[in-house]
Amino acid sequence: MTGPTVGIVGLGQIGGSLAAAIKVHGAPYRVRAWDRRTASLAMGRERGWVDEAAGSAAEAVAGAHLVVLAVPVTAVRRLLAEIAPALDQGQIVTDVGSTKASIVAEAARVLPDGVDFVGGHPVAGTERSGVEAADPRLFDARPCVLTPLPATPAGAVDRVEALWASLGARVVRMPPDAHDRVFAWVSHLPHLLAYTLTWAVLEKLQDRDLSLAGPSLRDWTRVVGSPPALWRDICMENREALARVLGEFEEELAAVRKRLETGDAEALQSLFHGAKEGRSRLWTV
Amino acid sequence: MTGPTVGIVGLGQIGGSLAAAIKVHGAPYRVRAWDRRTASLAMGRERGWVDEAAGSAAEAVAGAHLVVLAVPVTAVRRLLAEIAPALDQGQIVTDVGSTKASIVAEAARVLPDGVDFVGGHPVAGTERSGVEAADPRLFDARPCVLTPLPATPAGAVDRVEALWASLGARVVRMPPDAHDRVFAWVSHLPHLLAYTLTWAVLEKLQDRDLSLAGPSLRDWTRVVGSPPALWRDICMENREALARVLGEFEEELAAVRKRLETGDAEALQSLFHGAKEGRSRLWTV
Repeated sequence: MTGPTVGIVGLGQIGGSLAAAIKVHGAPYRVRAWDRRTASLAMGRERGWVDEAAGSAAEAVAGAHLVVLAVPVTAVRRLLAEIAPALDQGQIVTDVGSTKASIVAEAARVLPDGVDFVGGHPVAGTERSGVEAADPRLFDARPCVLTPLPATPAGAVDRVEALWASLGARVVRMPPDAHDRVFAWVSHLPHLLAYTLTWAVLEKLQDRDLSLAGPSLRDWTRVVGSPPALWRDICMENREALARVLGEFEEELAAVRKRLETGDAEALQSLFHGAKEGRSRLWTV
Repeated sequence: MTGPTVGIVGLGQIGGSLAAAIKVHGAPYRVRAWDRRTASLAMGRERGWVDEAAGSAAEAVAGAHLVVLAVPVTAVRRLLAEIAPALDQGQIVTDVGSTKASIVAEAARVLPDGVDFVGGHPVAGTERSGVEAADPRLFDARPCVLTPLPATPAGAVDRVEALWASLGARVVRMPPDAHDRVFAWVSHLPHLLAYTLTWAVLEKLQDRDLSLAGPSLRDWTRVVGSPPALWRDICMENREALARVLGEFEEELAAVRKRLETGDAEALQSLFHGAKEGRSRLWTV
């Protein structure tokens, strides 16, 4: 396979899907990859998703036109420091983490001059993990957010955008801070609420009462089945934005409680009606 | 059909399912029913679920051994006042409302001496409504909570329990206040959170950002599609218990926010882990 080399570090669900999508979509890239699990790398080779298996993270990124760090958010910073010495001027680095401001700041701090970092967040993935859960269609029609800084060269952003667009993703650009606030609202806060609600219900009620929970609580707490360490890391990486958003949400709840306490049925109805009418906007815009 | 007469007032999803379940399970009751929509009543007759269509609520309950008020929570109180003059000593009245303390208190106030009220709450039903959504298997293996007061004669409670048990429901008894607190936690609070979260996300984010919401927010806000007026009424009927429970939940959220602000990853992990481990207890006890 000819074309620019994409160096993927981390061949889990996202990294594996990225490699697979490049092949299935016939995107013009050569895929070099490394993962600390050699079995993952072997599977990537066997399936024909990986053209070249590297022996280390540094080897995977050396000379690659585009480097994709496809590891959990907390591993990105350590990895940036590890690969920095292996990078040369003109290379472009991106990642797939679901928080952006802290990663973008760290990249600006540790990467060599002339190496451009473009924060990335493909909004895709399931509760499963590992290369076994890879899916070449994972990014089809899904958003992929890129978070360049004002100083990031437009050419670097365009090349990262071209990669994701060639895999069927819908690329959206926004500043890192804006990204972190949006995802605190649409993803991290809902997860935090589900965990806290589940915990509180278990804490406050007796076992016999728990059997009375209906299917809506089940739907509601489904995400609680995700790996706790993954969500701890996402919440901690985005803790500033998330704490602010949680504070704003607490204010909304206090206002709703006031409506209950004063018996303001009309205000409650208007909230419920507004949410019902508006919900469709969440996925049709 | 012989056996004691059950007088059902309100032939919607719950009342219709009750009538249908009596027939399908071959439970030894004669079904008399009334609904303000004559079409609902006609359908109940056609399907063979209703033995006798009454011309009014008062006619439906007159002389019935067991009266079941299967109307929305806010309609129960008006209906109690309406049927009171038609009731005689020895009759037993129950309901199917999802809040209990205010209804039980009102029944004690307006029903004639010698008429026993046993609050009931079959924990069943879907987002659909009307007799068209009736299902004779709706109560199979589902909990049905009965909320007698200390002064309620045991014989009256037993007869209401026998009705629900004959339809496959698992009957649980608890005081009205305990019921309202449990359902505030497992049902009303989750609904309130879903409405408030949806509303806040729409309020705080721009349209472009809304398109980034993933499937977890979709699962989360699914219940927002329910009729706003129904949930307004449930929340208002249970507003005292719900406001208290919401206040307790706000305290939990403030503690979680503190963990984010102080960067206490371990405490966050312990919350997430506890919720994940404990979640299975919600349905297996």
